[in-house]
Amino acid sequence: MSDTKRVTAAVLVIGNEILSGRTHDSNIPYLGTELNLLGIQMREARVVADTESEIIETVNALRAKYDYVFTTGGIGPTHDDITSACIAKAFGQKLIRNPEAERLLRERMAKMEVEVTEARLKMAETPEFAELVHNPVSGAPGFRVENVYVMAGIPRVMQAMFEGIKDQLEGGVTLESVTVGSYVPEGSIASELGLLQDAYPDMDIGSYPFFFDSKPGTNLVLRGPDTEQLNEAAAKLGDLIRTLGQQPVEGGIEVPKSDS
Amino acid sequence: MSDTKRVTAAVLVIGNEILSGRTHDSNIPYLGTELNLLGIQMREARVVADTESEIIETVNALRAKYDYVFTTGGIGPTHDDITSACIAKAFGQKLIRNPEAERLLRERMAKMEVEVTEARLKMAETPEFAELVHNPVSGAPGFRVENVYVMAGIPRVMQAMFEGIKDQLEGGVTLESVTVGSYVPEGSIASELGLLQDAYPDMDIGSYPFFFDSKPGTNLVLRGPDTEQLNEAAAKLGDLIRTLGQQPVEGGIEVPKSDS
Repeated sequence: MSDTKRVTAAVLVIGNEILSGRTHDSNIPYLGTELNLLGIQMREARVVADTESEIIETVNALRAKYDYVFTTGGIGPTHDDITSACIAKAFGQKLIRNPEAERLLRERMAKMEVEVTEARLKMAETPEFAELVHNPVSGAPGFRVENVYVMAGIPRVMQAMFEGIKDQLEGGVTLESVTVGSYVPEGSIASELGLLQDAYPDMDIGSYPFFFDSKPGTNLVLRGPDTEQLNEAAAKLGDLIRTLGQQPVEGGIEVPKSDS
Repeated sequence: MSDTKRVTAAVLVIGNEILSGRTHDSNIPYLGTELNLLGIQMREARVVADTESEIIETVNALRAKYDYVFTTGGIGPTHDDITSACIAKAFGQKLIRNPEAERLLRERMAKMEVEVTEARLKMAETPEFAELVHNPVSGAPGFRVENVYVMAGIPRVMQAMFEGIKDQLEGGVTLESVTVGSYVPEGSIASELGLLQDAYPDMDIGSYPFFFDSKPGTNLVLRGPDTEQLNEAAAKLGDLIRTLGQQPVEGGIEVPKSDS
């Protein structure tokens, strides 16, 4: 794979509980971080309800647009778990009881001494031409169809599934990042920052203002494929911050979530 | 407004930092919860990068589909703050320096004794026919164009802005929710749950499995407009859980985030 190829991904979080505010999603930031380490850039994330038409439409939009799509949620045994059926419809494939998934589930149920119910066997359903994604935590597998990976919603289970598939993902260029923080307010550094961005078009310079300890400040995150260039730009930023009468803080200034 | 009208909303979170995993979004759950209290259901949330075409396309898709759209992020003074310009383009309006916004900003800058810079005045730019959204925390206003509310990304600022606009939002039917938790695994209650859902079509029964303290369990969330019906269904669920040899826990069982 080329050193400069950009590989993209989208995440689709499926579940009413995220939209109602009941559950705080942590799969988006987890996957954003992990994919980035593999040289895959998450370009979009969506959260949709447990509604068939929404899931099908969204999966089809995302899989056409990005190299990879990762879905989380909706693959359990209950009536509101409709992801597998929707993915089958999105790909125009039959939903089948996957023999290998059924074998894994029956093995697990025997080991856990739980009853084999129709509801539990529903978790063995996949689109006809799906490849299973191993679930070392709770047994019921996820699956892949073409460029779409279907995973559990429970973060611990999703993360274990992702660990199992990440070696088969093809990454592109890996982006490094360098963060420089200071108590320079965003508005005092903004125009120089724009010039710096113009000087380094391969780099993405993000500016994250905060109010902390009654003082405004800014964390500046430089992201790009070339470490040497990142360090050079970070040094220039440090000088700029000093000329504005403040001290640059390598790695950024940590502030509470509600303030940044 | 009718008692049974469903009013819908979508949230659009704008910012590379959410997609890279650097920043964990908390605006989606906040708005999901707050809108629900107003009788407005958040039906979808999206996170997109600081990319003009993505923002414009997404705003136009969402504003056509939902009663309200709330955007967060990208309205600061730096080069990567392009939300206002994108909203103007999405509506086919000119981007202007809004006189009232400029007055507010200059007043604030004088009070805070910070320099009036071109970058800071960029925060006074809005689409031509925008109505300002007051920012009591840091001065720079958000704005509304038709059914799209444009707010800051910093949660504390966004929340203060939302407090200021929520009286002007027209809600529909308010959904109440009742949660019943137990150490009954999802697969043991799934089919009865499906029957209960069929018996109460106006209600949305969500099933949220967890593994906690080495035991599998499930929190069941009943949501709907009719409190009496919710309590009736919750009582039936309680009975069901007892026949399965477990105790129902009103309000649900609290489990760590990574396990649910």
